[in-house]
Parts: sequence; structure tokens; C-alpha cells
Amino acid sequence: PSSYSITLIPGDGIGPEIISVAKDVLVLVGSLEGIKFEFQEVLMGGAALDATGVPLPDDTLSAAKQSHAVLLGAVGGYKWDKNEKHLKPETGLLQIRKELGVFANLRPATVYSPLVDASTLKREVAEGVDIMLIRELTGGIYFGEPRGFGTNENGEEIGFNTEIYATHEIDRIAHFAFKVAQKRCGKLCSVDKANVLEASMLWRKRFLAIAQEYPDVELSHMYVDNASMQLIRDPKQFDTMVTNNIFGDILSDEASMVTGSIGMLPSASLGASGPGLFEPIHGSAPDIAGQDKANPFATVLSAAMLLRYGLGEEKAAKRIENAVVDTLNRGFRTGDIYSAGTLVGCKQLGEEILKSV
Amino acid sequence: PSSYSITLIPGDGIGPEIISVAKDVLVLVGSLEGIKFEFQEVLMGGAALDATGVPLPDDTLSAAKQSHAVLLGAVGGYKWDKNEKHLKPETGLLQIRKELGVFANLRPATVYSPLVDASTLKREVAEGVDIMLIRELTGGIYFGEPRGFGTNENGEEIGFNTEIYATHEIDRIAHFAFKVAQKRCGKLCSVDKANVLEASMLWRKRFLAIAQEYPDVELSHMYVDNASMQLIRDPKQFDTMVTNNIFGDILSDEASMVTGSIGMLPSASLGASGPGLFEPIHGSAPDIAGQDKANPFATVLSAAMLLRYGLGEEKAAKRIENAVVDTLNRGFRTGDIYSAGTLVGCKQLGEEILKSV
Ligand SMILES: CC(C)[C@H](C(=O)O)[C@@H](O)C(=O)O
Ligand SMILES: CC(C)[C@H](C(=O)O)[C@@H](O)C(=O)O
Repeated sequence: PSSYSITLIPGDGIGPEIISVAKDVLVLVGSLEGIKFEFQEVLMGGAALDATGVPLPDDTLSAAKQSHAVLLGAVGGYKWDKNEKHLKPETGLLQIRKELGVFANLRPATVYSPLVDASTLKREVAEGVDIMLIRELTGGIYFGEPRGFGTNENGEEIGFNTEIYATHEIDRIAHFAFKVAQKRCGKLCSVDKANVLEASMLWRKRFLAIAQEYPDVELSHMYVDNASMQLIRDPKQFDTMVTNNIFGDILSDEASMVTGSIGMLPSASLGASGPGLFEPIHGSAPDIAGQDKANPFATVLSAAMLLRYGLGEEKAAKRIENAVVDTLNRGFRTGDIYSAGTLVGCKQLGEEILKSV
Repeated sequence: PSSYSITLIPGDGIGPEIISVAKDVLVLVGSLEGIKFEFQEVLMGGAALDATGVPLPDDTLSAAKQSHAVLLGAVGGYKWDKNEKHLKPETGLLQIRKELGVFANLRPATVYSPLVDASTLKREVAEGVDIMLIRELTGGIYFGEPRGFGTNENGEEIGFNTEIYATHEIDRIAHFAFKVAQKRCGKLCSVDKANVLEASMLWRKRFLAIAQEYPDVELSHMYVDNASMQLIRDPKQFDTMVTNNIFGDILSDEASMVTGSIGMLPSASLGASGPGLFEPIHGSAPDIAGQDKANPFATVLSAAMLLRYGLGEEKAAKRIENAVVDTLNRGFRTGDIYSAGTLVGCKQLGEEILKSV
């Protein structure tokens, strides 16, 4: 039987509760599919700050690097909000993305039919939305140098960042995106601001060049301001989308809200080699932490992405996804997605998912 | 009687058609309110490129600077899309914003009740939305230096831009935004990405400092990714919003689509002194140019903003806004906002607005 080592990073807020559910699901599915997991739980974010003084301890990073895949809950919370940049929980997240080299962030925005009415969009607009948004995750303005604070020629304080892309950074995310589009409907929409930004002009130029190698994919381009409108006007026009780090941050959250299923949406972050990083797209929800109210679906679905994209265990991944749909169909809901059915807590929902596996 | 010189910039695509309607409305309202206008029509964007080789001719800029206010249609079109940056119609727009020093861009996102069903959001979510989004317009990544293309240490091509804000740039837009919020509901939401970007950290620090001078305004902060979700989840939570140039570009388009009234929305761009720049937020719509299909409402409402914010002629501004509502109530619609009522072209809609004045 296959055997994998998995790094679990519960993180902060509701992180421990949802990771615990996802772990149980992985163990059960593994036992049914003949897959053995070895789990190692490590600290990151606020939990790591409190225990070790840094948001990403060396031990955490080396555990992650040595494992086959990393499953993350969420990081952040009010307590550390005023910390200086290098002592913010979020900084740990950015560091681990960079250190693992996971440049391609897959963020599916899928409407779950039983939850379509949770969208604020009209049913006919939201129903059937199924977008795969690919966000470049280790470049652009998030990491560009120079950055910082300084004084300008008038003696005033300034704050600055650099949006920068090199050819190889664009090329690798482009190849990744074209390949994803090939396996979906063969339509790829690249989002940029090439009418204003040089970094976007290079982005568009490289996408046009690489498109030659994928004659079966229909490439289109859209300005980011227009994309933010079109996602509301007619989200079903999109199949696979790809964009830079900061635009991806904004548009993926918007797309997830379009589906109304934000508590349901997982993500996968992948590099050229080495372990991938898998996490729900929602945050650490400190306001409901420790109250057994969290929705574990997105983390459980992230575990499915871990199996599919991280380990190539497609059958086990499908088994989890089917269990999620079955649990939804049996009517079990946490508060965030409740309108009818049976309202349950995080723990009980976990048990229901196990029954559906 | 007051007398004002107005620079008209029809621009490209549907620009000439909609500017012509707005001009007629201004003339009629002026004659009723005892205001005299002297109009001067000049070229910008693609029209200027074709005629003079540059997107913002010196003559246009000096006419604009010497007038009391500038009313713009729209610029851009397929024909010039592949032009190099300094020969793009959009570059003319960025240049005139910078040259006029209009750092504060007011973008109201208002739902017009008779048009609420045009929104893709559910009626109960969209109805009553009334957001004033203020976008910083002459700084940030749109104008930051250094910018351009180059080669990195591996000999690869790079493209880069600088997101940069100096204290005085933040302070002046902050004061502007607090004053707008004071005249509205006293709630101001500043949108940034202060968990990642130093430019945003300075932005937030200055807003917190300046808030001390406006104890009657309740200031909140939101990360841009969350804001892009919240605008869909519950747009009515927002009253006055303020953000940087690029986030404002994205969020204002999103907010306008939330209202479903994008063909209805005007904008005003104001500086510390000198003429303001007034334009609809929609584009030049080259696909319907010259076909008498354009919706002139947004430009007519931009003329109302010109009267209010540019000339201080509140009564005349109100008269235009009332005429627009009256025309809507009488059922006249262009194709983009048509579902019932009387479908008319741009010209006839202009005549109906004149009747309502
Ligand atoms: C927490 C924050 C640093 C992070 C980001 O901006 O990437 C988050 O918003 C996300 O999208 O994963
Ligand atoms: C045309 C383009 C340069 C412009 C911008 O990005 O500012 C437009 O999108 C706008 O919002 O006015």
C-alpha cells in the first residue's frame, strides 16, 4: 500500500477544529483505499508566534519540506493584528508559500446545487457556476523588491512596493494554466491591466507567445476592472481564469462569494516539484473559534485536492468529494450555510461526513 | 448671470453621441437657471491620435486647464489596442488626470429603483444600494516610478511597476474622503492591503492619524480581498468608501455592476483647485458607436456632477438629476437598460430628457 507523510498545520482560530475533521476523513478514506498516512502536526501563524516568537519556525518549514503534502487550517487573529510585519501570522503564510515554491494556486469557485440559494446572485445567474481560478502565488507585488518605507525629496514619509514579473515566472504559470484549461473546457481567460502596467504588458506578451504551444486552448484577455464586473454580470462565461498574485487575491474572493459557498471552497498551491500546500480559502474566523461552529467542508475538500494534486490519488479524492455531496444531500449544515435541513456543529458534521465516506 | 467655459472632449466610440446629448441638456438647464456656458470641443484619445499623432495634444490640455470644467465622453477602441503605451488612447486619459491634478475620483454606485431588476443580485440585496466610492486617481501604481522593462541577473526580460504613496498624497485624499463622509452618513470604510503591502501600511497609518480631526466620522478598515466579497454579500453595509488608484479601479467597476445600472453611473475627478474632470464610468463601446444606441444618462448625470462639484451650481445639478428620474419614470429606456417601457435611441432619449428638464 502507498504510504505518505502529511504535515498538518492547524494554525489559529477555527484551524484546529477543521483540521481535526479533515484528518479523520483522510484516515478513513486511506484505510478504505489502501493508503497509509503519517501525520505530523506543527505550528504556524499566531500559534507559532505565541510559542516561538516567529510566525514560521524552522522546524515547521523543514517538516513541511520533508513531507509529501501540507494541509493547513487558517492563520491570523485580532490578537496579532497590530504586530509589525515580520511578526504577523500572515507573514508566516507568505513565507511558507515562497519557501515551498508553490507558484500556482488553484482556487475553484463552484456552486453546490443544494446551496445555490446562499448566493446573493439570482439563481439563474449563480446556478452551474464552475470556475477554476489560477492565481500566481510566489511573485508580483507580494514579494517584489524594493519595498518598504523611506523619505522622499521633500522629507515626507513614503511607503512603496514593487510589482515585478520575470519571464520564467510568467511562463511557468502560463504553462500550468494552459494545461488546466486543456483538461477542462479548453477556454482560458488571462486577467491583467496591460493598458496601464508594464508588468501586465510582459504578462500578456508571454501568454500570447506560449499560446502557440496550446492550439487546442482558446486564450482570451480581460482587464482586471472588467473582470471584476463580468464575474457578477455573467460568471458562467468563465471556465479557467489565470492572473497575477494581487489580482488573484481580489478576484478569487469575489468569485467565491459569487457561488455563495465560501465556507465550501478549497484551494491547492503547487510548485514544480516538492510538496503542495492545501488550505480552505476562508480565514481563521476568530469570532467563532473554539465554539464548535466552524464549517469543515472546505478543509475536507482541500484534503481531496491534496489527494488529487498532491499525491495523484484520484480515487481517494473522488471518494471524499462524493462524501461531501452525500452529506449535503442528507441535509446536514453548519450555521454559515444553513437555511433548511439539520443544523449541526463542526464535530457532528465531521461524523456525518465519515458516515458518507 | 454666471458664465462658465466648459471643455468638451467627445473622445472615441459612442463619446460624440453622448456628449452631444449632455451639451444640449446643459444649455437648456443653463437658460432656465440663468447660467451661460461657452463650450470648446477638443480632441483626446484615439481621435487625437488619428488627427495629431498623440493621445493628449497640447491644445487640448491648455484648453482644459483654462476652462472652468471638463466634460469627457470616453476614449479607446480596437483600432488603437495594439499601440505602444505612449500611443494608446488610455495614456491620454491618464495624462490629463495627472496634468489637471484631479487626485480625488468620486464614483457613486447608486441603484435606480426603476432599474433594480437589471442587477444580477437579488432584489433585496441590490435595492437601496447607495455607495460613494472615492478613488485616489493621480498616484500609486498608475504613476509610480521606476517602471518599465529590463533584464534581470539571469538575462531574462522583466516588467515592473511601483506602488508608492507619499504622506501628502494620502493625507489629501483622506481629508477629502472624511469630508464627503461627513456630508453623508458619517461612515467611512478605507480599503487597503495593509497585511501585505508597505504602501498600504502607510495608507492606514495616515488615515488613523487624520481620523482624529473628524471625530464625527466612524472610520473602518477593510482588506481589499474582503471588500470585493462584501460588495456582493451585502453592499448596503457601505456608505462612503475610499481606496488607492488600482484597488479603486477594480472595486468601482464591481460596485457599479452590483447596481445593475452601469449605463447610468457618472463620475467626478477633482483636484485642490482648477477645473474638474467629469465622465461616465462606462467605456467607449466601439461595437455600438455611431448606431444611435448609446445610453446618454451617465454622461448627462456627469454633467450634473460638473454643475455640483465643478461649478457649485447645486440647483442646476438637481434639475438635471430630477429630469433623469422623470425620464426613467416616463418609461424611456435605451437597449442596455431595457426590460419594459419604450425603447428609444440615444438621440430620442436626449429629447425626452430635455422635455423632463
Ligand atoms: C492572509 C493573506 C496574506 C492572504 C493573501 O493575501 O494571499 C489571503 O488573503 C489569501 O488569499 O490567501
Ligand atoms: C481606461 C483605463 C486607463 C482607466 C483606468 O484604469 O483608470 C479606466 O479603467 C477607468 O477606470 O477610468
